[in-house]
Amino acid sequence: MLYHKKKLKSIYNFIHKPAFTVNKKFNLVSGDYILNPSIAFKTYGRLNKKKSNAILICHALTGDQYAAERHPLTNKKGWWQDLIGRNKVFDTEKYFIISSNVLGGCMGTTGPNSINPRTKKIYGLSFPEISIKDMVSLQLELINSFEIDKLFCVVGGSMGGMQVLEWGANFSERVRLLVPIATSYRHTAQNIAFNEAGRQAIKTDPNWQNGEYIKRKSFPKSGLAAARSIAHITYMSEEHLESKFGRTKKSKPLSQIFEGSFQVESYLQYQGISFVERFDANSYLYLTRCMDRFDLSEKYKGHLKRAFENNFSRWLLISFKSDWLFPTSESKMIVNALMANSCDVSFVEIDTNRGHDSFLVKVPRFYKILKGFLSGVKN
Amino acid sequence: MLYHKKKLKSIYNFIHKPAFTVNKKFNLVSGDYILNPSIAFKTYGRLNKKKSNAILICHALTGDQYAAERHPLTNKKGWWQDLIGRNKVFDTEKYFIISSNVLGGCMGTTGPNSINPRTKKIYGLSFPEISIKDMVSLQLELINSFEIDKLFCVVGGSMGGMQVLEWGANFSERVRLLVPIATSYRHTAQNIAFNEAGRQAIKTDPNWQNGEYIKRKSFPKSGLAAARSIAHITYMSEEHLESKFGRTKKSKPLSQIFEGSFQVESYLQYQGISFVERFDANSYLYLTRCMDRFDLSEKYKGHLKRAFENNFSRWLLISFKSDWLFPTSESKMIVNALMANSCDVSFVEIDTNRGHDSFLVKVPRFYKILKGFLSGVKN
Repeated sequence: MLYHKKKLKSIYNFIHKPAFTVNKKFNLVSGDYILNPSIAFKTYGRLNKKKSNAILICHALTGDQYAAERHPLTNKKGWWQDLIGRNKVFDTEKYFIISSNVLGGCMGTTGPNSINPRTKKIYGLSFPEISIKDMVSLQLELINSFEIDKLFCVVGGSMGGMQVLEWGANFSERVRLLVPIATSYRHTAQNIAFNEAGRQAIKTDPNWQNGEYIKRKSFPKSGLAAARSIAHITYMSEEHLESKFGRTKKSKPLSQIFEGSFQVESYLQYQGISFVERFDANSYLYLTRCMDRFDLSEKYKGHLKRAFENNFSRWLLISFKSDWLFPTSESKMIVNALMANSCDVSFVEIDTNRGHDSFLVKVPRFYKILKGFLSGVKN
Repeated sequence: MLYHKKKLKSIYNFIHKPAFTVNKKFNLVSGDYILNPSIAFKTYGRLNKKKSNAILICHALTGDQYAAERHPLTNKKGWWQDLIGRNKVFDTEKYFIISSNVLGGCMGTTGPNSINPRTKKIYGLSFPEISIKDMVSLQLELINSFEIDKLFCVVGGSMGGMQVLEWGANFSERVRLLVPIATSYRHTAQNIAFNEAGRQAIKTDPNWQNGEYIKRKSFPKSGLAAARSIAHITYMSEEHLESKFGRTKKSKPLSQIFEGSFQVESYLQYQGISFVERFDANSYLYLTRCMDRFDLSEKYKGHLKRAFENNFSRWLLISFKSDWLFPTSESKMIVNALMANSCDVSFVEIDTNRGHDSFLVKVPRFYKILKGFLSGVKN
């Protein structure tokens, strides 16, 4: 048995507070709509009187709103806890930080495991297809609820970076600084392929029950864990994997041949198991799908430049040298499109060996650059 | 339903001929043994009187002995059919080609789905752990059965290349030319991690039944297909994936959200499905495990050079520029170790965009180099 049933159930029972409910038909890019969606969020620091010091943090695929505090389900440190706080990069003495769970997520924001108010049943696969733009539109509702006219900054890595790009492309007048990190304006065929392999692993698990696992009280833990393993490899650089594990064998030789004798195998197994304690399989399907379909240039027949016309925000793009999932070349394409519009854009590639996950790791130069960029602009 | 039950069963019913049975306890590197193992093979061309024109072809992870003919189960072209035949690189007018299925395989050579003669039951997970050296030792029994004293050449790509390296390290006196292609002397942590993700997908499938699926007539097709998808991505270069599929969407939009709307998704799904028609899940577990544990330098505490002492074969190593699974740097390490022993070694990196799979693709320069190398030596 790979998991603890007691722990797992809590994903589906826990009530995430606070959450803001949009009492209306929330229209989606697809033409469909969601009735009265909720967006769960956390804030750190205080909104100033001018409401000019708000920073919106956008999380990545498997992140959530608990950016700067222990996670209520896993009790683990927040994913950007080293960045957010008093005297930290996102200084809570100075800024008002808003961190919300994305549309389609599983931490209190409306997603495939929410109750559909129209049918009173769990959405499951009847949840409509969502886009990165829909995520951002819902964030905008939250921002409006705070009566914030203009965000000081929107920042995020990976899928979070896609949200930042979407803010820049569609709601530039509502934000001063934009910081997309380790991201891309559209997935490559390889990105899509890795996600598809993960989705196959989930759909392979008969406990997935065609998405109706909550109703049937069967959870596709193994499939989700396998999907996480695949993705996790792509988040790490080969160099880091090699230096962390190499071919190191576990100290206790195991009698069972396929229980894994290399540390890297155990690590992946552990990562997969701990992941299913805090994530939902259908959310994983919807969100990876949403990333795969994201393409800022699609509307303009591939001309990315046109996505950023009339953009007056200030941009900082950050990529990491060892990131092979969203390599520097991806960020450069965005930089070029912004520069072609004479936008105010800075770009830096940071030399780390931690791969795509570098934005979740304490990298001094990354922190310094972020802090420098923010403090260069008065809020 | 992803598969046709009728087709699938044939993997387990088909009798592969010819096969040579070693009537003895066949000792393994692990200390364990296999009683009376069989090795299924195919030959092309004729053995000359001097028995000096034999070329042993070593297949990769999911290959088999049907290198130069239509596959009896899938009816697909042999995996090196373009290379083997009259006037081809491996000219059957000139050479006697031997192509055998590896130990642990599922095409007639003894493997985890064979009957254990000691218990009269299918091995399943009671099949002992095997090594690349064990595969080669069994090939040697086959070569001995032909009374061939010295092979003209041993050649193979990927896991086949590992076998070639093992021939060079342990049975160099039995072979004149050695051609390891797109291979490595040991897996990196990343290689192991990708394999582990595939194994997780198989073990995730409840139809795997802890390896006893044949007895219980349940086949872990979905898990095996997912494992194949993961591996398949690593076999292709990003460039090739991009040029083949890019973000091209399938012509017919599908109503089902998760049936895949990108061509690359459908392609992977198709690859996975066609794979389970011809491969066995336990073999996949054993063979990937065997590749992960392969390390020619382990015996010498990491000094690869020592693996090739007293080696008098002539070597040609080939790597492919776009291969990120076994990059050129891996081949170079082997070349360096051989050169440190003053071995007769040639090395070439071929510029293709087909990734690791390049050795299975018609690449004119690759063919020319192979042909030139072979014809430079009289048999």
